[in-house]
Amino acid sequence: MKALKEKIIKEGTILPGGILRVDSFLNHQIDVGLVSECGKAWYEMFKDAGITKILTIESAGIGIAALTAQYFGVPVLYAKKTRSAAIGSEYLSSKVVSYTHGQVYDVIVGKNYLTPEDRVLIVDDFLSGGSALKVLITLTEMAGAKVVGAGIAIEKAYQSGGKNLRELGYRIESLAKIESMSLEEGIKFVD
Amino acid sequence: MKALKEKIIKEGTILPGGILRVDSFLNHQIDVGLVSECGKAWYEMFKDAGITKILTIESAGIGIAALTAQYFGVPVLYAKKTRSAAIGSEYLSSKVVSYTHGQVYDVIVGKNYLTPEDRVLIVDDFLSGGSALKVLITLTEMAGAKVVGAGIAIEKAYQSGGKNLRELGYRIESLAKIESMSLEEGIKFVD
Repeated sequence: MKALKEKIIKEGTILPGGILRVDSFLNHQIDVGLVSECGKAWYEMFKDAGITKILTIESAGIGIAALTAQYFGVPVLYAKKTRSAAIGSEYLSSKVVSYTHGQVYDVIVGKNYLTPEDRVLIVDDFLSGGSALKVLITLTEMAGAKVVGAGIAIEKAYQSGGKNLRELGYRIESLAKIESMSLEEGIKFVD
Repeated sequence: MKALKEKIIKEGTILPGGILRVDSFLNHQIDVGLVSECGKAWYEMFKDAGITKILTIESAGIGIAALTAQYFGVPVLYAKKTRSAAIGSEYLSSKVVSYTHGQVYDVIVGKNYLTPEDRVLIVDDFLSGGSALKVLITLTEMAGAKVVGAGIAIEKAYQSGGKNLRELGYRIESLAKIESMSLEEGIKFVD
């Protein structure tokens, strides 16, 4: 998506460790108009796919999911990260390792809120190694629901997450695919 | 707001410890249509107040803030909770005690994203003791920005948070004010 790529070039900052900072418009401050355009783009791609729920993970995905869900007219469900061992029988849970924080989390969703009838579009801000997306796929499939696809704002295409999941047959639609990124050469997009 | 109160009566669950569970429509699964109506209601109240930013705190406030910001045509800023001591000079930070989790957090916002020119509407899902709202007010005023008011979905009016902050002169608009709540008698709203 052109507007998103332009915004990344204009306001994104490359930090040491391969981190792309986009907190002026995506995951701290939110440019609601731009994110809404992302939602509209995914709606155009998935509008005939019978989506019944938008699934994401706290926190950065929530605003994106809420603005996207408006186009589809379906609820948002955001998975929660928790470190409490006692999760209870009313939740589905799966573990994820946070590379940013170096910790293991349980990621949970209420059992009532994903059913075998659901056709799920997963939405998130970033796709890099794919750990967040994998855990959301796992939870959806644990519930017997169908993962129709994923809408990702920014994919680091030089990491393996997107490639691996596409090879497994998942449809992943990323609006800005970064081919390479460095302090010296800046950001280059695929295409 | 009638639709919100009806939804609370229909789907809200009172848990031991005075907790009102509304995770089927507000803070886990999100009923995007209903929350959007909440945003519209706050827009009607604050549309002439020159709001430049919607401020909230992760995670439950983010979806509400994003859907509200659409009416105002302004960005969302969500404060982040962190337990890392080294926060850095680019953030404003203030401490908050989580009653749910019994821990002290630093709550931070990027210094660049709140300026003395900003006129801020704070939005959140719940107001009880007021600790989250107070920390958002503190951060806004640390930045030299103006707190125009707060839009709260559900206020536990039998707790002191709203009363104390209104006495200090803050305009707080809660869409469902709970007068009392118990397993025996159910939920009663103010008015």
